[in-house]
Order: sequence, then C-alpha cells, then structure tokens
Amino acid sequence: MIITNTALQNPALEETVFHVANGYLGMRANIEGAKKEYCRGFYINGFYDQSPITYGEKFQGYAEEKQSMCKLCDVQGISLFISGKEVLVQDLPRLAYEHTLNMQEGFVKRSFIVDFEGTALQISTRRLASFTVRNLAVIEYTVQVPTQSADIAIHSTLNGDVANFHNASDPRLAAVAEKPLQVLSCKANTESLFLEMQAKHSGLCLACKVSHVQNGLACRVEQTDTMAKAIFTGTLQAGQSYTLYKMIQIKDTYHFTDLTHEALQDPSRYFTAQAEYMHAFWKKSRIIIKGDEALQKAMDYSIYCLLCSVGFDNKFSVSAKGLSGEGYEGHVFWDSEVYVMPLFIATNPSIAKQMLSYRHTLLPYALEQAQKLGHSQGALYPWRSIAGGECSAYYPAGSAQYHINADIAYACMQYYFATKDVDFLATELFPILLQTARLWLDAGHFTEKGFCIDEVTGPDEYTCLVNNNFYTNVGAKHNMQYLLYAVEELRKAAKNDVLAQVGEAELAEIRKAMEQMYIPHDAKTNINPQDDSFLQKKPLNLADIPKEKFPLLLHYHPLYLYRHQVCKQADVVLAHALYSDSATRESKQASFDYYEKICTHDSSLSLCAYAIMAAQLGMPQKAESYFKETVDLDINNTHKNTHDGIHTANMGGSFLVISKGFAGLYFNEQGLCISPNKTHSIEGYRFHIQYHGSDICIDATQTECTLQLCSGPAQQVYIYGKAHKLTDKMTFAIAQ
Amino acid sequence: MIITNTALQNPALEETVFHVANGYLGMRANIEGAKKEYCRGFYINGFYDQSPITYGEKFQGYAEEKQSMCKLCDVQGISLFISGKEVLVQDLPRLAYEHTLNMQEGFVKRSFIVDFEGTALQISTRRLASFTVRNLAVIEYTVQVPTQSADIAIHSTLNGDVANFHNASDPRLAAVAEKPLQVLSCKANTESLFLEMQAKHSGLCLACKVSHVQNGLACRVEQTDTMAKAIFTGTLQAGQSYTLYKMIQIKDTYHFTDLTHEALQDPSRYFTAQAEYMHAFWKKSRIIIKGDEALQKAMDYSIYCLLCSVGFDNKFSVSAKGLSGEGYEGHVFWDSEVYVMPLFIATNPSIAKQMLSYRHTLLPYALEQAQKLGHSQGALYPWRSIAGGECSAYYPAGSAQYHINADIAYACMQYYFATKDVDFLATELFPILLQTARLWLDAGHFTEKGFCIDEVTGPDEYTCLVNNNFYTNVGAKHNMQYLLYAVEELRKAAKNDVLAQVGEAELAEIRKAMEQMYIPHDAKTNINPQDDSFLQKKPLNLADIPKEKFPLLLHYHPLYLYRHQVCKQADVVLAHALYSDSATRESKQASFDYYEKICTHDSSLSLCAYAIMAAQLGMPQKAESYFKETVDLDINNTHKNTHDGIHTANMGGSFLVISKGFAGLYFNEQGLCISPNKTHSIEGYRFHIQYHGSDICIDATQTECTLQLCSGPAQQVYIYGKAHKLTDKMTFAIAQ
Repeated sequence: MIITNTALQNPALEETVFHVANGYLGMRANIEGAKKEYCRGFYINGFYDQSPITYGEKFQGYAEEKQSMCKLCDVQGISLFISGKEVLVQDLPRLAYEHTLNMQEGFVKRSFIVDFEGTALQISTRRLASFTVRNLAVIEYTVQVPTQSADIAIHSTLNGDVANFHNASDPRLAAVAEKPLQVLSCKANTESLFLEMQAKHSGLCLACKVSHVQNGLACRVEQTDTMAKAIFTGTLQAGQSYTLYKMIQIKDTYHFTDLTHEALQDPSRYFTAQAEYMHAFWKKSRIIIKGDEALQKAMDYSIYCLLCSVGFDNKFSVSAKGLSGEGYEGHVFWDSEVYVMPLFIATNPSIAKQMLSYRHTLLPYALEQAQKLGHSQGALYPWRSIAGGECSAYYPAGSAQYHINADIAYACMQYYFATKDVDFLATELFPILLQTARLWLDAGHFTEKGFCIDEVTGPDEYTCLVNNNFYTNVGAKHNMQYLLYAVEELRKAAKNDVLAQVGEAELAEIRKAMEQMYIPHDAKTNINPQDDSFLQKKPLNLADIPKEKFPLLLHYHPLYLYRHQVCKQADVVLAHALYSDSATRESKQASFDYYEKICTHDSSLSLCAYAIMAAQLGMPQKAESYFKETVDLDINNTHKNTHDGIHTANMGGSFLVISKGFAGLYFNEQGLCISPNKTHSIEGYRFHIQYHGSDICIDATQTECTLQLCSGPAQQVYIYGKAHKLTDKMTFAIAQ
Repeated sequence: MIITNTALQNPALEETVFHVANGYLGMRANIEGAKKEYCRGFYINGFYDQSPITYGEKFQGYAEEKQSMCKLCDVQGISLFISGKEVLVQDLPRLAYEHTLNMQEGFVKRSFIVDFEGTALQISTRRLASFTVRNLAVIEYTVQVPTQSADIAIHSTLNGDVANFHNASDPRLAAVAEKPLQVLSCKANTESLFLEMQAKHSGLCLACKVSHVQNGLACRVEQTDTMAKAIFTGTLQAGQSYTLYKMIQIKDTYHFTDLTHEALQDPSRYFTAQAEYMHAFWKKSRIIIKGDEALQKAMDYSIYCLLCSVGFDNKFSVSAKGLSGEGYEGHVFWDSEVYVMPLFIATNPSIAKQMLSYRHTLLPYALEQAQKLGHSQGALYPWRSIAGGECSAYYPAGSAQYHINADIAYACMQYYFATKDVDFLATELFPILLQTARLWLDAGHFTEKGFCIDEVTGPDEYTCLVNNNFYTNVGAKHNMQYLLYAVEELRKAAKNDVLAQVGEAELAEIRKAMEQMYIPHDAKTNINPQDDSFLQKKPLNLADIPKEKFPLLLHYHPLYLYRHQVCKQADVVLAHALYSDSATRESKQASFDYYEKICTHDSSLSLCAYAIMAAQLGMPQKAESYFKETVDLDINNTHKNTHDGIHTANMGGSFLVISKGFAGLYFNEQGLCISPNKTHSIEGYRFHIQYHGSDICIDATQTECTLQLCSGPAQQVYIYGKAHKLTDKMTFAIAQ
C-alpha cells in the first residue's frame, strides 16, 4: 500500500498526489523551503470566506456572494542554511529522490540527497495529518551531513501573508486572486509560534500554533506583523542526523467553539496512533482487486484519498478536490452524494450519516434558493456551495442542474436502505425528501405526454437548459417515490409527529406526478434521449477534432457545444447505472452504444458510469478498460489537471465500478441486491459491506461469488433477483 | 410642433425628453448650475472606451472587452451668483416654469421664474445641437433681474472630471462606475476654455472648445488640471436682461482626422440655420396624423428624436437610447435595422445608406465573431456593439440572438428594393448578404423535418437558447433568398467581379437550405410556435402577477421565465409583421390571439408589432390602442425608465405602425406594395416616401387613399397586390 515517485518530474502534480489530509485539515506536498512552486497550500474543510460575484450583466435571482475555501496560513516553511548559505534542495544537483505515500500507516515521506558544495546532503521529511487528533499535522524534518561537520541554521516559519490561487482563463478555478484572511495576532516565543487569523467577510477565525520538538540546537525567534519564525542554530558533526518535529495545531470557529489547543504528546506517538487507525480502517474498507497490483494500488489510493477528504462533522461533506487543492474553490457539488457517499454507505455508514446531516443543516438555504429561483414551494439545493448559499456564477451549468435535489434524495434513501436507521429518517432525511419532492411538483407541470420538467440542465454540461432531461426526470420520479416510501416506513414506526408535515392531498399530487413522470424514450432507436431535443441536433464527429482541443469546454463557446450532439459526461448512461429500473436491458445497451460515440469524458465523472454499464451489459473487457482509466486518473494525471487537486468524485467512482458494475450491488426498497457480472482479466475482488448492522464480505473470483456473514444477524439477500437468507456463507456461480 | 412642460415634477425624465442632439453630439437637459441631479451627460455618437468584462465563471469565446459610450466632459455648467450668493434655481420657490421643445425649429427652451430673496428672478435658456454644424452645441443663457439692480457673477465651466452612470442591479445599465476619460490638457483664457481628453483604453481623443459671446460683463478665467472656468462679473440694472452664449465645439478622433475647430459666426445665425434645416426636414419627413393633435405631437417627437439620434457618417448608426442617455451603454442593436431604418429608407434613403455602410465597415468584426463562436464560415454580427466587437456579457440573451444577421440582411434589401441602388448593392450590401447567408449554412443542419437552426435566441428574451425559433428561421430563409435575388440583380448589372466571390455549388447549397428551411407550424392551433418546445411549456397567467412585478426581468430569475410560456416582446408576431409571406392570414390571426395573452411587452420593441398586425388583421381599434401606447411611450414615460434615455426602436416603431400597419406599405422583390387597412378613430394620415428616385405622397382618409407622384419618374405600384402605373395621382377605396 505504498505509492512512490523516484524522480521529481512534475512538482505541481506531486503537491497534490502526496498531500496529507484528515478530513479536517489538509496540506499540499510543497517542498518546505521552496521559493517557487505551483500552489502552496494548507486548508481546513469548510473554512471559507465570501466575496461578491461580479457579472458583466446581472439578472434577478443570481447568486450574489461566492464562498471560497481559504488558503490558510503557510505552515510548511522550513529553510535550511549551511554555513549561512541557503540550501534550496530543488535547485541542487540531485543524487537521489524518493517521495512515498504510505497508505497503510497514513503518512508521506520524502527524501532528497543533493550535492551541496561537493558533499552529499540528505534531507528527509515525514508528514501526517492525524486521524486521531484531527486538528494536528506533523512534519518531521531530518538533516544528515555525512562527510564533514557543518554550522547549520533552520528557519521554521508560520506565515499569515497568503493569497488564494487563481487562473482567470479556466472556469474550473477561481477567477480572481483573493487575500481573504487577515492576521489578528502573531506571536513567537521559543515554546511556539502562534497566529490568529480572520476571514474578512465570513468572519470565521482560526488559531494556529506551531510547536517544535528537537534536541541539540539553540532556538531563537523573530516575528513581523504576519510571520512568526523560530531559528535553530548549531553545529552538526559529520554523519550526525538531526531531526526537528514541527507540530502544527489549528482550530477554527466554523467547527469549534473553543480554539484552545490541547497539550501535545511525544511526536512519535502520533505516527503510531495513525498506523493503528489506518489498520482498523483498511480492515473494514479495503477493496481487494485480485491479481493486479497496479489496480490494487490505484484503488487503495482512491479509498485513502476519500478518507482524507471527507468532513469529520456535519459542517462539511466532500468537496470536488477534497483538501488537496483549490480547484473548484472547495465547493461541495452533487459529487459527494452520487459518487463518494456510496462507498461510505456501504463501508462506513456513520461517515455517510454525517454527510447527510450536513445537507440537512443546509436545508434552510435550499428553501431560500428555491424562492430565489421563483418557486412557490420546496427546496432547491445549490449547485455548488460550502456553507449553504449558491456559489455558481453561471446558472446554465450551475443552478439549473436541478438534479442535485434528486441526487441528495437518492443518497438519503441509499443510506436508509442500507441501515434502516428510521430515527435518522424521521429527524433529518424526511424533511429533505419532502422539500425536494415539493420542488419537483412546482418545477414541473402536467401535459398530454405526462409530467414534464422544463429548462433544467442534466449532468452533461455540454447541453444546457433543456426540457425533460432523462437523468433529471428519472431522478425526480425516484425522489417522489422515495418520499412516498419514507411515509410508509414512518407510518410503520408510528412517527406521527413527523408525518404531520405533509397532508394526504399533497401526497396524492406527488404520487400522480411520480406515476405520470414523462421519461424520454425513442421508439426508433430504442434509446433514452438525453432530453426532448437532443437527438435532433447535429452530431459532432469527435474523430474530426484535434486532440489538443480537448477538453472541449476550454476551446469552444458553449453555444457551439450546446448546438451539437456531444456529451461532456455520462448522463443517460449514469441514470441507467444508478437506477436499474430506469430502462430495459436492450434500451440500456442501445443507449450505451449511442452515447459512447459522442461522449468526450471531459468530466472526470464520466468514465465510471460507462464502466458500470459495460460490466452490466456483458462487455467486461470494455468495463475493465473504463475502470482502469477511472482508478488511474489522478495517479497518472490523465486529465492533466491533478495539480489543481484530486478528483474525489472519480475516486468514489472507482468503488461504484466494483460495487454496482462488477458485484451488481444495489440497495433498494427490496433490500440488498447482488447480481455479479463477469470480469475479463481481473481475477476477482473482495470487500466488506455493512448492512442492517451486519458485516458481510463479498468475495468474487472470475466464476463464482461468495457471501460471508462476518458479524451481526442473518440477512436476506437478493441474488440475481432471488431472495436468500445469508446466515453464514454462501457461494454461487457468476452468471454469463 | 411644440412639447411643453410647465411643472418640473420629474427632473430626471426631463433630462432625457428635452435633450438636444444632432446625430453627432448630444446633451441631456440638465439644469446648468444643478448640484444634484439624476445623470448629467454630454456624448458623441460612437465615442467609446473599452474595459474588460468580468465574469464570475468565464467560458471560451465569451466577449472579452466591452465598449461603452463615454460620458464626455461636462459642458453644461453655468452657475449664477447674485451679491456673492449662488442661485440654485431648482431649490428656490418657483413662480413659473416652462420647458419647451420646439421641433419645428430644432431647439429647446427653458425658463424659470424664482423667488430669490424676495425678488422675482427670471433665468431662461435656449439650447441647440446644430444640424448645420454638427460639432456645435449652443446654450443661450439669459438672466433678468426685474426690480432692483444687482451685482452678478456667472461661472461658466468646462469640466473634465466625470464618471459614467451606472446601476449594478439593472442589467439594462452599466454595472460599474467608470471614469473612462483622462484630461490631456486644460486651458482657459478670456477667449475660450479648452479641454483635450483621451479615453484610457480605446485611445480615442476629443478636443472641446467653449467660447463665450456676451456684452457688458467683465471676464476672467480660472483653471485646475481638469476644469476650466470663465467668470463674468458686473452689475445688472433693474429690469435689465443679460445674455451669455456658451458656444460648445467638440471634435473627436473616431469621426475626424483634424480636431481643429472652425471659426464661429454670430450665435443667432445657428438658430436661424437650424430652423431652415428643420423646415426642409419636416417637409420631406413629417408623418401627418389627421385629427388628433396629441398623436401628431407624439409622432413628431418620435421622428424628431430619430433624426437627433442617427449618426451623420458611416462610423455610427443609431443606439438604443440615441444621444439622450447612458442606458444600454450607447450600443447599437438590431433595433437600428429593424425598427429605425425603415423610416429612413422610406423618407431619407441617404441616411439609411450610411447606416448600412456602418454595418459594412464592421463586417470584419462579424467574421471574427463567427469564428469565436465556433463557425467555420460566414459572419455573425455581434448582438451589441459600438465599433464592431461583441459587447454582450450574457450570451443567452445576447450573442445567441443570431437573428441580427437576418435583420441586417433584411435592412440591406429593404434599402435596395426602395432604391435599386445596384452599385451600393455590389460594393457593400452583397458582401453582407453573402457572409450572413454563409453563417446560416454553418449554424443550421439538414434533418428529416427540414433545415433546422438550433440553440439560438429569438427576439423574445424570456425564452432563450431554443431550437428553430420561428422569427430566426423565417429571417434566415429570407436572408438566403435575398442573397440569391441579389446574385440575379448583379448578373443583370454584369457585376462579374463581385459575383466571383461565390460559386455555383455554394449557391445551390444555400438554395437548398432556403427551400428546405423548417418553419414551425402547429396544425392543431394553426399558430406558428415560437420555437420547437414553446407550446409544451407551462403558460404563465399574467393576470396572477402583481403589477409591481413588471417588468418581469427585474423580478424573476431567467430560469423561471424560460420555463414558462411568457413573452417579453413580439417574436412570431414581429416575424408576421416584417415578412408578409411568412404565414397565412388565418395563422397570423391565430398566432396574434395566442401570443397577445402571454406577452408582457416588457420590451419597448413589442407594442408596435402588435399594432401592425392588429391593423392588418382587421382590428383597427386594437391597432390604434397599441399605436397610442407606442407613440406615447417616452413622452408619458410608460416604461418608467425614460430617464435613462429615449427608446429609439419604439420611436421607429411608430412609423412602422403607420407604414406597415395602416398603409400596408412594403418594399419587396415585386417593388412598392401598398394595401391600406382601416383605421378606427384616426381620421387619416399623410406622408411622403422616396421610391426609385421619385417622391410619392400617400394620403389616406378613413375610406380612401390617394397616391400622388410629387416628383420623379412614373412608378409601378402594387395596390392590394395589383399592379398600377402611378403617373400623377390616383385614389382608391380602402378595403374592408
């Protein structure tokens, strides 16, 4: 479970790939004493500032303020001086280099051996973001001077003068350089460095304390208004190794009421505790891919990164880039519910519960957003947000993506189907289901052809503002169906107070809309059209487009893309992957074949959906090819923008391929359904799921699948649609 | 021909209504010495600066820079001091007030009698923007102290420290306050005040010279870096009247190569010359409305304002607000071709020719815009611009309005049909027709139902990004047809060099697209659907919406509007009005009835189209009601935003109602067609048109119509579709 780079070819990429994070704080893998780099960064999940959005032409109901994750104070600074001369490791002749992510024990190690004025100087670091003490990161910094003694000085800094990353010509990044934080106080003493900062507009505060643990060097401090510095000086003997531990504690007012920092233990204790934590995590959550080390490593990396990214309380979920970079400004999208949450629902339901609870706390903002968009009832979750307000500055590929409502409802019920947590259903999930269902009733209308939903944007952002987007209508139908199902469940549980929120007449109207929902289907081709007019448009021949013009959004005006049959990502195919009952197998196959030709996969949310459907449709070779592209995306930087952060949705997609694609694992009204599909060269896979309080291991080879009840009560399982009681262990053949 | 206000109830409105302009310069009717006012302004048509457009999220091909008409130096400042005390006329008790626009002689007069410390003080001004010397404006400022002698001082200023008007919450106005001009030099001497200014980004320069003509007071001057001031002091005897002429000369590098100012004549000479100019203009261009003084006055005002607004060279056309205010930032839209130009084509073809020549000079920018939007051929005129680049910051209701191409082609051919100016066709119109037709071929595509044009926005901005907008497809069809017609005309005229620009294969393809153009028609209702999906949307019941929620665009998110059947303005109905052959009479009637119910007329471009079609469809009472709303719009401030400028398109619409609506006057391939429709209470109308070198007077009563050839050769005229030779005078009954 180790990822290693032995040549520093793409430092910007390494900044992301080797970041450390623990769901609360995250630190990019910058070289401590670097003078030039791509993006130096330290973050807290959900710690944001806000700023007005400027529009060339502004219309009613537009998002007014944007929340952006703040780049926090820089805590990584450690500069080494030998005989008064600064050692800039990245500029010196390199004798050896190794950068390692140890996923098994949860830390990152980097070691440089450089030629410094004729001597081989070794500088190595270990870093962790502690899972046992969430507000702590540790940098262990070791210097070894092998051949002759040296006078050294090490400057360790805590710097409050930072600005957010930006790139005005890429819509996936912040357009303007902001310095959202101001320093409230800056202190330095030989015990510790200390910085208090405040976000200018949100008012959020943080307190960061840096303590040093070392032996042998003298310490003095310096400070300015915005920077505190500890300077360690002394002489190292030839061959002597010197280690400085930089203990970084941070707390903020978004997550904590008391910003006091706890007393610290011995540094090595945190590394040990981290290893123990990870051991327990992997036992429960590792997805074994049999017989393919590279895939295994990539899959481990996906799961590991998701653990690093997911919020530890109900104040935050998972942003598009986790805590690894500033792409998409730290916003939470539908990615969290559709792509990431299924992993946690299946393997760590308590984490999924917190993610859903985050959405519940933001329900008032969703009610407000619905009103802003002219609705007379219901809630519309913002397309991108941190603390609740819509932050999308381009509604056609933003607020118009109403499907986020259905996606959140979907996640609510996936969690419920897997846990039967009826109390949580009553208190937090039901209000979400009710208000999202109400929104659909207001957004759509009954016509001759059924209940229609006009002027929305589906997942595919290369076709915006359409009528009857297949994915949206299917999702809305399920959203309503889930509400009706939840009502039944709550009735059974006699949650009468909760049920008083909705009357019979409204439920009847919702049932009518659900039953009459118009689901686009084209008789001639037997495919599900992406929307009412998609099939009438001019197809774009992707083979005619030069490679350097991808992703298309960076090279073509939206109108050009919208006018053509071309997809940024899976849309109909994703609906088929999430909602098994949304089409016949033949229609799924026809749709797959149709859309595959015109899909660019310019979005990282696309490949996994194609992998799932390929597996389900009996194309295992194709499924594995898409799967490989999915799991490799960040490690191999195939989208060429991993330097801006990992793609958390795609990482969640890796699990979706294994679970929905290969294992055919679905939670639904029936319960737990498993219908494994053939693999091609993958020898098998194994993972555990948590279901209704039981731990079930799913272990597949190329020909058969074994289910084992590892703990908890016996459970009913539907295998290829047939009910079985799982009391201990059962093995069955994988269907052709 | 006089418009008078006798109470200063709405100073902001008066600033617009009583502005003076001459197609080159324009000055709002600010009170000379005002301290507080709505928007003080002095402008040159086409004098712009540019600034980057900021987007919250920016995509490929977006307009990068916006041109905005600059507010120029303030030339209106004249402050009066009596015994050292400033006379702020608008704050003093008012004994009498009169503000008069004399359209017959082309000047504005305002007179205040105020109670100044117990004496009745009269201050009156006359202003003109000279039509005979286009770079000259004159303010005649007269003070009369009736009862006792007084020491007076008059400060006349030329001030370069000005900022553009803005309002961030109204998309019809600039979002940001800009100070686009910097002062290059500022001089003051007792002969004149002088200011040289430069627009910071466009680099355009202006030189403004203010000379004073007066007798009796001593003059001294003061100056700062940005302001020059002449101070006139002395004693006025009781009952003595004192007049100061402020002669304002301005020239700029957008229109002139030499900025030297000519020597001036006696001030009164310009007032006399103006009266002569206006006399000649009215003789040719007045539209007589018989028996209704109020309508007559409003119609005169429309024609007068259009003369004031239209550029005097081929560097500018007509902006949405003319030279009367900063609404829409001085941009030229399709308004100029579809709404304003028909008046000039019919009455002053040389002005229309210059407006078309303006579009021809901008063809290179339109070619570039087509490329930016991904087209492989053709030209796409920008939706809003001054000097050629797209300035729309919201493409769904901007650049996506491809119909502007058809509108310009329409104007080209209207001009040609009326003039048979084959040389101009060859040199300037044909390249426009060719490149716009080419664009359609690239933008659309052949399908089973015909040639379709997807993802465009029609005139109705409450429904954006649609497929097969009726107005657009009808216009595109005509655009192609016009090109083919022009080819025939050029063949006849043996313009072989010009014809070499296009080959037979391309013409055949254009003919095919033209013939197969898909024109939406709904068999069930017999209406022309506005676009492919319009009829499927939820109708909006306008009666349910409170009055204060109009115009809807200021109160509802675009998505809400786009999702409903609701129109900002005539779309299908406008197509019927412009292109008589676009539908059967029954279909026009059904469409009129259908769209009338859901049209808010939130755009000022709407009423006239409904008036035209009501007249043509035999609803004279309704036609007159819409007509009255059209001509009254600015005078009565019915849209409540005339303070930001007049609505030039609507003013042109006033003529469209008389010509296309009542007289049934069309220029087309056949020639001149006249098919008068009944009026209801309007007793008749009379106007002259210029046709193929002849002056023809059209004189209608409620029952009959007389055509008289006033000058030029005999002409063939189609009356109710039947050809007649007009050699002298002919009278015919108006059909039922």
